[in-house]
Amino acid sequence: MNGASRAAHFGAVAALVRSITPHSLRDPHTGMMQYSASDPKIPTAAVTVEDAIWIHRLTQTGQRVRVHLAMEAHFEPDADSADVMGEIVGREKPDEVVVIGGHLDSWDVGQGAHDDGGGVMAALEAVALMKKLGLQPRRTIRVVFWTNEENGGRGGVAYRKWAGLQVSKHIAAIEMDGGAEKPVGFDLAPGNRPGWEGIRDRATAIGELLKPIDASNVAPGEGEADIEPLMAEGVPGFGLRTVAARYFDYHHTQADTFDKIVPEDFRRCTAAMAVMSYVLADWP
Amino acid sequence: MNGASRAAHFGAVAALVRSITPHSLRDPHTGMMQYSASDPKIPTAAVTVEDAIWIHRLTQTGQRVRVHLAMEAHFEPDADSADVMGEIVGREKPDEVVVIGGHLDSWDVGQGAHDDGGGVMAALEAVALMKKLGLQPRRTIRVVFWTNEENGGRGGVAYRKWAGLQVSKHIAAIEMDGGAEKPVGFDLAPGNRPGWEGIRDRATAIGELLKPIDASNVAPGEGEADIEPLMAEGVPGFGLRTVAARYFDYHHTQADTFDKIVPEDFRRCTAAMAVMSYVLADWP
Repeated sequence: MNGASRAAHFGAVAALVRSITPHSLRDPHTGMMQYSASDPKIPTAAVTVEDAIWIHRLTQTGQRVRVHLAMEAHFEPDADSADVMGEIVGREKPDEVVVIGGHLDSWDVGQGAHDDGGGVMAALEAVALMKKLGLQPRRTIRVVFWTNEENGGRGGVAYRKWAGLQVSKHIAAIEMDGGAEKPVGFDLAPGNRPGWEGIRDRATAIGELLKPIDASNVAPGEGEADIEPLMAEGVPGFGLRTVAARYFDYHHTQADTFDKIVPEDFRRCTAAMAVMSYVLADWP
Repeated sequence: MNGASRAAHFGAVAALVRSITPHSLRDPHTGMMQYSASDPKIPTAAVTVEDAIWIHRLTQTGQRVRVHLAMEAHFEPDADSADVMGEIVGREKPDEVVVIGGHLDSWDVGQGAHDDGGGVMAALEAVALMKKLGLQPRRTIRVVFWTNEENGGRGGVAYRKWAGLQVSKHIAAIEMDGGAEKPVGFDLAPGNRPGWEGIRDRATAIGELLKPIDASNVAPGEGEADIEPLMAEGVPGFGLRTVAARYFDYHHTQADTFDKIVPEDFRRCTAAMAVMSYVLADWP
């Protein structure tokens, strides 16, 4: 992420990074980078695994490799964007909130189907399912589509800022941002909400409800990017976890397209998001 | 292959073909096409599997899909090219020939590592192995790197023309053009060479020698493209067959690069090519 600045520090005029993926068909993978304040801001780009191997092979045999770098990437001034929200108001404690969601933005190269179209749609379908079943939990369930996750996470920061003091009444934040493959369960950072010290046990018990779809695993983890500002305030953070068999083949590439979503897997993700958020929100 | 002409016949102004591959990361797969004499010569291009699915999905929902087609492909006048040959002259019957080889050309998008760099290199390494072992078979083994396989097969035709009457003394033609994955054996079109009516039994017996590398299977087949002009004259034609697990992921794309060649698999291909060609050429 800071490779360009590190390279510039040692005199580089540009930096190339090998795309991070287990399986390449010569697709470059985009991603975030950050310049340090003190080093020259040099161009940096991702090359495919194949080209990185090729360049390495050439240099290993003592050949001088010249790369012609033509890039159109540039920064534009900040512009307004928005988080999108909706909620089912709790029937007993409407001021206590379980947040579920994903992020609305994606890299420009593909459609962002797994990252994170699947996440926002699963969160939306989860509450749509509750509406369809006529379920209203004790606490409020708020669906949030965060904006600007990929390029700075400012949608997550904006949500936390908007929520203000209400954050102390957030009892859980659940994000799906690891693709819509077959889910296995949730990672959980337990936070420090009073009355919710036993959230790991509760989450594990709720996980049992997901055994029929093999998504019962609740393991220690770090949540997801958009809910970080909430977790920093002690809100328990959940990240949906999947088998992650192909996610990084598609991640941040032109190949992250709708056809890669397996409907059965997506439905299981929806079920996992619905069950975890509903039962937490309805906890007596 | 004749889709553009068929489409033009019905009034199309351009034709798109869905790339043929079991596994796509939005890579288009190039390939051959042929215009009929009687229909308008319209532009035609391959689109990725993803884009084909997308277009299909849009049309299924009644949407009008407009495609902006910008292509640089064009025909240039014919230019000279050459087959490349070398041989180990037979010690008893130098005029009788076993041909082994692959094709030297490839599509421009990748490096042509599997199609057919692996084939030409395995054929070369096969005879290099014989030289290294000091082996000189009874008959001549001729390595041929055919040119222009992808765009008309004129290297194969030129070889047949060059060989002239000597073709009647060709007792086998062995081509590797299915990628350098783990070999399983050979396809064989038995031809009609006098004295070689039993070539299937002989090939099966030779296949047994390849059991230690699991490449013993000899099955009925159609040879390969460059040896077709020889097979048309009754020369028995062999095509090396592999597990073909990934070949069509890479075939005719930018992803057909050297890193996709697994050295162990390549060595097995070389061994299979060496054993089949040598024992046939040395048959008493």
